[in-house]
Formats: sequence, structure tokens, C-alpha cells
Amino acid sequence: MPVSTTRRAVVRIEADGEPGRRPDDLAVESPLVLGLDGEAIATLMRTPGHDIDLTAGWLVVESGVRAPEHIALLRTCREDDTDRVHITLREGVAPPRPRAFVTSAACGVCSADVLDLRPLARSAPHSPGWTVAAEVLAGLPDTMRRRQRAFDRTGAVHAAALADATGALSAVREDVGRHNAVDKVVGRALFDGELPARDRLLVVSGRVSFEIVQKAVAAGVAGIVAVSAPSSLAVDLAREHDLLLAGMVRQGRMNVYSGDALLTAR
Amino acid sequence: MPVSTTRRAVVRIEADGEPGRRPDDLAVESPLVLGLDGEAIATLMRTPGHDIDLTAGWLVVESGVRAPEHIALLRTCREDDTDRVHITLREGVAPPRPRAFVTSAACGVCSADVLDLRPLARSAPHSPGWTVAAEVLAGLPDTMRRRQRAFDRTGAVHAAALADATGALSAVREDVGRHNAVDKVVGRALFDGELPARDRLLVVSGRVSFEIVQKAVAAGVAGIVAVSAPSSLAVDLAREHDLLLAGMVRQGRMNVYSGDALLTAR
Repeated sequence: MPVSTTRRAVVRIEADGEPGRRPDDLAVESPLVLGLDGEAIATLMRTPGHDIDLTAGWLVVESGVRAPEHIALLRTCREDDTDRVHITLREGVAPPRPRAFVTSAACGVCSADVLDLRPLARSAPHSPGWTVAAEVLAGLPDTMRRRQRAFDRTGAVHAAALADATGALSAVREDVGRHNAVDKVVGRALFDGELPARDRLLVVSGRVSFEIVQKAVAAGVAGIVAVSAPSSLAVDLAREHDLLLAGMVRQGRMNVYSGDALLTAR
Repeated sequence: MPVSTTRRAVVRIEADGEPGRRPDDLAVESPLVLGLDGEAIATLMRTPGHDIDLTAGWLVVESGVRAPEHIALLRTCREDDTDRVHITLREGVAPPRPRAFVTSAACGVCSADVLDLRPLARSAPHSPGWTVAAEVLAGLPDTMRRRQRAFDRTGAVHAAALADATGALSAVREDVGRHNAVDKVVGRALFDGELPARDRLLVVSGRVSFEIVQKAVAAGVAGIVAVSAPSSLAVDLAREHDLLLAGMVRQGRMNVYSGDALLTAR
């Protein structure tokens, strides 16, 4: 079993009282290097565990991988004290392309095409007539929270899961990185043959940025339910793709930023 | 003035009561494309504002820039509806190198040198005999919080600032991205001639990952004070560089993960 939490001695200082030395549980953060065709293509700073799912989920967003058979081989190895996954894609599957560093034309920078959402073979994210009750959305963060094992110990890891309209949750995945937690869930769904994850909701423990919505779109979910708030661009992208987007879901209250037509009235 | 928050109509659902439509303030997230010598080298998803500081702070961590005179020119432009900064470095200053996508040797992946902290011309992060009182650390997050203007409206932006041992804070910077908030603060300190930021503390609103400690090391601060918890690797890197690292700083309590010798007893 990979180790997702670890202990360090810390000095604990209370509001009043003597400082004391005691062990504290921390979320493990360590690099996972992804390699493709003999080249390191990315380093993910992640919490160990479900590395194959993480790699697969990352590929769903960053490459042409949309089905398990698009991946020829994922092989883990450990060398120089670093975890690595070697990726072999099937012939004809678009490889990940560098997102941050792209060559461009014209004035040099100004025609760089760096923000485009990759063309996704995207089916409708929900069945005709699919809806979900606000009560179900309201309960999802707490349900996920109760299944966060690393959070209980560290108080500082993010989580993600898939849910259906009855509120049933898939495997909860935790990670120091919000994006990694989502990638682990998406990779698992890929291997389970559940992509596109139609009629499902992506539940996330933190805020919703543009990139989280990109991942939700790539996974083909019907919507996103988040404990915290989305950014402006996240809302705009969710609306563009007709995703349900509920945020600040706390104590039975929430804001529905996109797709409120998918909510059933109480 | 760049716009750091924006409004969208949302459906607000209360625990009991009718759902109502109302405007909600969101943190703006939009791309800033960085260009160097005619090539787009990075896209930062950031909250607009202090783009030049952000770019300069990013360069302190990602390139050989350590002083204002290492930068020949930073020029903002807006084209294709996207904000951009064109960077020109002085001759001889090491340019940013791609961090995620590197070519490697041997088994292809296994010799990739992707995690090395760049050699930093690092002076001692604090003067001989420098210490800080636990009471000062305990007050820093609240002091910063009171100066977070975008957080008041959106409840969802991160902040960073520099503080001295008396608890005095430099300009507070906010951003949807934790890393960006730090880069904005570091860039401002660069232009103010305050790098390395000896005898100063980096205050951050969220968790502390490896990358946040990297930025603190590059800025030359004496320590980091965070509202939430660090990862394992963040603690290890802080110890390696003799940084003070205080986390979970809430209601007068805190954990000191590294550098507790720099704390004065109450």
C-alpha cells in the first residue's frame, strides 16, 4: 500500500499553555514523473496511491485517450528514489501536448493557442429528462467528507468522487492536489468503462477553477458539486457546456451557478 | 484598474425557503500569457491585477532573475481578447526553462532531472540572532485577512503578503491561484529592491505545498506562516533550508513544522 500520510515531530503552540513537541500527521506530497516514448513529459506533485488511475485520468484531459483501449500500457517503476509511470498509447491516439510551453507565430506571443479546450468527442452529459434534487446535492459534500480517510488525519487534503442522482458516491479519491484528486476519479471511471460519465456528478472538496471544469467536460459528467466557490471563467465554461454547477454547498445552502434547469424543485 | 471580481446571476438555495435568483460576486480567473523572445512560454490562470509583479515574481522562481536590473523589459499587451506580458531579459540571465516537459536520457524517463531546486544565490534568510514571537505569528493571518478585499466579496481567493518580526505586513496580494498570490508579492519585493527578503516572513492563506516552499526559498525569506497545513515534502524542504514554517495558525494555536529555534518563548 502506498503511504498517503506520514508523521513529523512538530512544536504545538496552544493559545495559552506551554508549547509541546508532538507527532503530527501530514499529507504526503511526492513527485510522479510521467514518461511517453522515452521522454519525461510531466511531473505531477501528488499524494501516492492510485498512480495508474491518476495517470489515466490525466491522459483523458491532456491527450486523445477516451477509452481504456486507447492506452497500450501503463507501467510503474521507481528509480532514483522517484516514482514513475511509463505510458504507451495505441497507434493513432493523440499524445499529450505541452500546454504551458507552445511555439507561436505573429508577434511571437499574440497568436499562441494555449487556452483552447481540446476537441472532445463529447456526448450529451445527461439523458433526456435527467434531473437531480437540490437535497441530494446538499448532502454530497458531507457524504464524501465522511469517506475521506487522509483528511481525518491531516486536515489538509482535497477529495473528489463521482455521484449519481440518488446521491450514491463512487470511490472517493484524496490528494494534496485538487486536480490530482479529480484525475484519479476520472482514471478509475475510464478503466471501469464509465466514460463519458453521463448522468453523473463530479463532487470536489475545494474551489472550482477553469481547469476543474475542463476535466469535468473531458469526463462527460452532467455537473459539478463543490464545497467552495467557482471562478468567473469556471462559471462561463460550465454554462457554455450546459453543466450543472453548484458551489458553496454548506449546511443545506448552495449557489447554483449554471444548469439550474437540471434541478428538481423541492 | 483591472477587475478582480465580477458578478453572475446565480440561483441561491437556502436550507429552508424558496430558491431565489440573485447576483453573486466571483473572483475573476483569466489567462495571462507570458512571452519570451517571440515565444509563448507559459500561461498563468490568474486574477487580473499586478500582472507585472506577477510576471516578475514568476521569473524569480523560474529563471535567473534575482534583481530588477536582470529584467530588460516587461511589456503588457492585449490581443485576441487575452492579456499578455512580453519579457525581455538582460544578456546572460538564465531564461525560464520548461519544468514539466523535459527531455531525458537512459531508460527515457528515469534520469529526468525535473525536481531540482534551481541553484539559488541564497544568502542567509535571517540576520544572526533574528527571532520572532509566537504571538506575532499568531496574529498574521487575521491581519492579512482584514486586508483581503476580494475575499470579502467572493469568499474564494487566496492571499499572500510579506511580514516582519513586528507583525507589520507589506502589500497584500490576492489571486484565485495560491502560487500567483505569492508570485505577485515576490515580484513587488523584487522591484522594491527587497530581495532576498531577509528577516521577512511569507504569509499565505492556504496550504503549503513543495512549490510554495520553493518560492519562499527563491525569495530568500526567513520563514512561512500559513493558515492551513503543509505537505510532507514542504516540511522536508523547509527543514533543509532552515526556514521557519508555521501552519494551522488559527485562534492563537499553531504547529511549528520547521525552524522552531527562531521562535522567542512567550
